[in-house]
Amino acid sequence: MYEVKDSQVVKDMANGAVFLGSGGGGDPYIGELFLVRQIESGVFPKIVKAAELNDDDFVISIAGIGAPTVLVEHIVSETMLMRLLKRAEEFYGRKIDALISAEIGGANSMFPLAVGAKGNIPVVDADGMGRAFPHIEMTTFSVYGCTACPAIITDELENYGMFEIPTDRTAEDVFRAFATSLGAMVVGAVYPMSGKDVKSFAVHDTITQTIEIGRCIRLAREQGDEPVDRVLDFLDDPENDRHARVLFDGKITDVRHETRDGWHWGEARIVDLTDPSDELVIDIQNEYLSARRNGKTVTIVPDLIAVLDRETCQPMTAEMLRYGLRVRVVGYSSAPIMRRDECLAVFGPRMFGYDEDFQSIDQLTRHT
Amino acid sequence: MYEVKDSQVVKDMANGAVFLGSGGGGDPYIGELFLVRQIESGVFPKIVKAAELNDDDFVISIAGIGAPTVLVEHIVSETMLMRLLKRAEEFYGRKIDALISAEIGGANSMFPLAVGAKGNIPVVDADGMGRAFPHIEMTTFSVYGCTACPAIITDELENYGMFEIPTDRTAEDVFRAFATSLGAMVVGAVYPMSGKDVKSFAVHDTITQTIEIGRCIRLAREQGDEPVDRVLDFLDDPENDRHARVLFDGKITDVRHETRDGWHWGEARIVDLTDPSDELVIDIQNEYLSARRNGKTVTIVPDLIAVLDRETCQPMTAEMLRYGLRVRVVGYSSAPIMRRDECLAVFGPRMFGYDEDFQSIDQLTRHT
Repeated sequence: MYEVKDSQVVKDMANGAVFLGSGGGGDPYIGELFLVRQIESGVFPKIVKAAELNDDDFVISIAGIGAPTVLVEHIVSETMLMRLLKRAEEFYGRKIDALISAEIGGANSMFPLAVGAKGNIPVVDADGMGRAFPHIEMTTFSVYGCTACPAIITDELENYGMFEIPTDRTAEDVFRAFATSLGAMVVGAVYPMSGKDVKSFAVHDTITQTIEIGRCIRLAREQGDEPVDRVLDFLDDPENDRHARVLFDGKITDVRHETRDGWHWGEARIVDLTDPSDELVIDIQNEYLSARRNGKTVTIVPDLIAVLDRETCQPMTAEMLRYGLRVRVVGYSSAPIMRRDECLAVFGPRMFGYDEDFQSIDQLTRHT
Repeated sequence: MYEVKDSQVVKDMANGAVFLGSGGGGDPYIGELFLVRQIESGVFPKIVKAAELNDDDFVISIAGIGAPTVLVEHIVSETMLMRLLKRAEEFYGRKIDALISAEIGGANSMFPLAVGAKGNIPVVDADGMGRAFPHIEMTTFSVYGCTACPAIITDELENYGMFEIPTDRTAEDVFRAFATSLGAMVVGAVYPMSGKDVKSFAVHDTITQTIEIGRCIRLAREQGDEPVDRVLDFLDDPENDRHARVLFDGKITDVRHETRDGWHWGEARIVDLTDPSDELVIDIQNEYLSARRNGKTVTIVPDLIAVLDRETCQPMTAEMLRYGLRVRVVGYSSAPIMRRDECLAVFGPRMFGYDEDFQSIDQLTRHT
């Protein structure tokens, strides 16, 4: 366990969380503001390794639920998060020993740290996705038998919903309907788990990963290095079956955005700077789901896609994409646990409507 | 307090509940089946007058929430209702002394009696609408400061939602979204109240009214009388400011039905049997909201509209209306409490999008 006393770490983490968000998960900026303010006032978030948990520790996730485009416009207040924590302890009838992100990508990386710092509860260096996903059942927690419910969800106006939904796929529909009926942004305590569950079923070390990605980008800029190269050096780790590649380098020529049913849908087209016939198309359903170069898939869910500003290496969420931006697109392996058959059955390509089996970025880009 | 030991009373009541449903509230047939079966097996529903309650008695409403067209297709099981009752007592942490309908019109008249008979809890001879309404906040309970929450809602698949929503208008949106996300039909325990609240704020004697309306229709048929006349004789009570009129007599020439956002929308056109230029149009939003004869409003919400089969006097819900049916349309005053200014501000014509103030059926039909 260690305390985060340097607000630079939080800023690095926010950048890394957008990178791992694969375009989704919302902008962590509001969470970053919370945490920086807390650290400056001497309230430090604590990060604990899963291995340090006791098997019978009680761990819950704190997550924002709603369309990321709405999240950016809604202020998620500290008061609301603390109310949620208090009510969650009453609701579960247990002291909460640790918090965990359900989703490390984007804003949901920050909520547990903000709540944990304020409530003096450590946050586990792990999550349930290793990225961001559009559905709450798309976690390793759920694949391995933990459920999102019992769950308690609230909003800024002190509306509360407490849910017991046996099936996580149904819980997703219910939570999203609840969020939409309240105007789209709610925060919930979900996935009550034991320390043993977290050790066995989480995607590990993902807070560390966000911090390191952010640090690579920052240090490269400070030192005049090429930031994308620095990030790829850190991420590319073939010995552990993780691969990172630049998929494309070009200019955005078309972006479609639509917010519908509480979701953000879209498609981005990027063409090569010198050869306009060379094109990459990215599919968006809250997150970047696939990248196809001239019709050939080069990365597909659950492997990650990051769209980076070509000069600054700033990772961009889907709602930031605009005509004319010059970008580098990076593909990155999801954690090995995410690529097991039982996981692909929940969040592999076919679950998003693709008529193709998962192939890893390593397989898809081996001959390009 | 009395026990209903004659299943004929339940059958009369079901007919009367459709009449008071003003086209909405769903078909009480499933609830009727429950109750008849219970009575035949010696389990009798108990009906109690509000005046018999103790001021500190704990009273809740049991209500189905969802589009009536869906209700007809979903079996609402006894098991589900009993699960709801058990969980409601745990949720509120109190023994439930009496049940009450939030809505006497349609299926929601029956649920409390079915649950009460099985759980040995009396049902108050009163409700919160004196009719059916499309929104859960459209009750006298809500107008006078009782709230629908805390509420517990469940479905056939043992999904549970427990809600604390301070504003009933928001609760309506949340409950409907919850119902829709689960496939449209849920049953809830709502409007926890004291015996004193019930005495002060309910619409009284409405179970008795349903039974009497059904009895009038049945006896007239048995005795070869004109059933519509018999019902009007019973309902028309100018001394108590309640008026009943035949608004129109004709043939349905056009019906539009649409189920959208968990709602039933529509419009029915009825023309005179001999003069096709004489036309009555009924607006439907789950319930019959207004009747306009040749463009002139003759009855408008919260006053009631009943569409009756011309021969049998069988009251018809909106989803039963079909081209070619010969019908009598009856208008009936809502209970005086429903016509107070503070009530009209919640369920008067303007709340349904009409650009006109409420006028009672008595005012609207005085010169016709």
